Amino acid sequence: MRKPRLFTPGPTPIPETVMLRMAEPIIHHRHAEFVALVGRINAHLQTLFCTKQPVMTLTASGTGAAEAAIATLFQAGEKGININNGKFAERWGKMMNVYGMNVVDVEIAWGNAISEDQMRDVMKQNPDAACIWLVHSETSTGTYTNIQAMARVIREVAPDTLICIDGITSIGAHECRMDEWDLDVVITGSQKGLMIPPGLAFVALSERAWKKAASVTARSLYFDLKQAREAWHDNSTPWTPAVSLVIGLEPALAMMMKEGVENVWKRHTLLSRGLRAGLQATNLQLYGTSPSHAVTVAYLPEKGRKEFIKLLKSDFGVTVIGGQDALKDVVFRTSHLGYYDEADMLAVLGSIEYALQKLGHEFEAGRSVYAAQRIFMGVE
Amino acid sequence: MRKPRLFTPGPTPIPETVMLRMAEPIIHHRHAEFVALVGRINAHLQTLFCTKQPVMTLTASGTGAAEAAIATLFQAGEKGININNGKFAERWGKMMNVYGMNVVDVEIAWGNAISEDQMRDVMKQNPDAACIWLVHSETSTGTYTNIQAMARVIREVAPDTLICIDGITSIGAHECRMDEWDLDVVITGSQKGLMIPPGLAFVALSERAWKKAASVTARSLYFDLKQAREAWHDNSTPWTPAVSLVIGLEPALAMMMKEGVENVWKRHTLLSRGLRAGLQATNLQLYGTSPSHAVTVAYLPEKGRKEFIKLLKSDFGVTVIGGQDALKDVVFRTSHLGYYDEADMLAVLGSIEYALQKLGHEFEAGRSVYAAQRIFMGVE
Repeated sequence: MRKPRLFTPGPTPIPETVMLRMAEPIIHHRHAEFVALVGRINAHLQTLFCTKQPVMTLTASGTGAAEAAIATLFQAGEKGININNGKFAERWGKMMNVYGMNVVDVEIAWGNAISEDQMRDVMKQNPDAACIWLVHSETSTGTYTNIQAMARVIREVAPDTLICIDGITSIGAHECRMDEWDLDVVITGSQKGLMIPPGLAFVALSERAWKKAASVTARSLYFDLKQAREAWHDNSTPWTPAVSLVIGLEPALAMMMKEGVENVWKRHTLLSRGLRAGLQATNLQLYGTSPSHAVTVAYLPEKGRKEFIKLLKSDFGVTVIGGQDALKDVVFRTSHLGYYDEADMLAVLGSIEYALQKLGHEFEAGRSVYAAQRIFMGVE
Repeated sequence: MRKPRLFTPGPTPIPETVMLRMAEPIIHHRHAEFVALVGRINAHLQTLFCTKQPVMTLTASGTGAAEAAIATLFQAGEKGININNGKFAERWGKMMNVYGMNVVDVEIAWGNAISEDQMRDVMKQNPDAACIWLVHSETSTGTYTNIQAMARVIREVAPDTLICIDGITSIGAHECRMDEWDLDVVITGSQKGLMIPPGLAFVALSERAWKKAASVTARSLYFDLKQAREAWHDNSTPWTPAVSLVIGLEPALAMMMKEGVENVWKRHTLLSRGLRAGLQATNLQLYGTSPSHAVTVAYLPEKGRKEFIKLLKSDFGVTVIGGQDALKDVVFRTSHLGYYDEADMLAVLGSIEYALQKLGHEFEAGRSVYAAQRIFMGVE
């Protein structure tokens, strides 16, 4: 017998109470009971996004939320900057291309975040951009970008450019204050920090963005956010939502509200620090220069590069995930995004130690768990 | 204590085994276990659609599947015919408008289906149409359209026009043979005949449609069916799918395969005949001239028009749904789509009789249940 232990950055583990709530008999989405539930959820989503704007729920993956923003806000020919530092960042450039935008793709080497100076240069060269997309936590590389600092620089140089944030793996993991930081578009997905299965995506627009939307004829019906906002005010959606996922969202958000959003961010900071310290104590090298609190990326051990991930699964039921594209068979990614606590990190580190011993990797066994414990105790 | 009894045409009731399967710990969508599961589902979906073409699974409502077809297949300026006989039919005209198509909206009075003669006239006037949209079972009015006959007429007059079928509430209820009837686009949703919660949509294209797609640059990234087809061949999806719903789909489809698709159609025919006979025996008037096997629409009783639906809910936990737009407070809609059997029809008829007695409606109590029993016994 092996318990399934999922350490992937989406889907992330679902709390048992959430799974059971979703298994209750389904209700109809136009009925009073569901409408009231959506009202409660909407208020909690605003707290999570740190915004007074509607946070609209779409039945789609996070990619759909980005498409909704682009289809609602921009016209063909408008300039869109894409800060491209990973596989997911790359997608928003492709998306803007599909919508006929004039895309300025700023390539940043994988594993790195754009600096303030680089950002200032980009904006000075493109002060006429209608928007700029930034990924808060890039899942393919585990890279964090300081959105607060970047937003400040962007506003300074190009006050009208809409700042669009891919918060798919950051919302619920990293501090993200939409209104205070003056962000214009923030999106996320359900299967990440929100601790429910994939199938829902969330998007909020600033007042500045809504003004822009008013001048644009939406290029999608399904993803028309002006219709979504209208329905939002009635605690509804223009189309049939993924009812069971919305039902699961309520207890998941209630858990986050009870813990407190700032404490949720702190927990992610602590868990990621502990995991990183632990991995370093096994002599595995961390990947990248700007670690995310959602997912940690480390190089695979030299010995048993191809076996390591399989061994974790077969011996301990632990599912971590490999790298994508150029990072395939180079790194592995371990999630601490969503429903995780300290003991999960100790379990995954203990399992990694075990697998490394089996593969003949050289390190001092036990040290990784100890290193994480020191962080969790607050003594390091 | 009242058991919840959902008789709405989507969401429809979820089998208990399906709900429990979806409550199991979630798995990752790129892992072997999930890929194998998707392979099994894909084969069953082809059986259900009666097609050899890929039936692609999208994370969206049924509306999203229609948008995917339109965004993948058509260019702005192309002519699209919409046979508009209800609230859902109306949507496909709007959708084509959003995509800049030249829409010929053929209005058919609500409650009616287009006739072969009307269809021939429409096609003779528009032999250059790139597509025509028809709703197989219109949920707002409970109206069935004979797609097989219509497809024959369309092909006769305009062999190249793509025949696009909204099968959202027909797949799994009405006979629909995509390949044999030479249909080009068939879409459906998960929360209907497929007996799982909303959040997935399905779409299949004919060879003729795929040829057309090859000449068109997709106007959506999320809904680009060429990418979806590529992923389909790997038992995958381009974006993160609604994993838990896909997991639930497997036992739901297994139930349908065990029963046999033709028997599933027969069961829906029987249940709808029984319900209609029962309602007529209560002196309630049926709405429309071409009844669907998915949902039955009847006029509300004169006495207690506003109370009837509420009374069913409060006294028996029975949820039926009212009419939309012009049919609001005029009709009520009772579903027999998906996970229903004869006893469900007897329970809903018995509850309707009870409510009608309370409201002072004149009829002979007990006759409706008897009328349905006669149908179910095969003696009427």
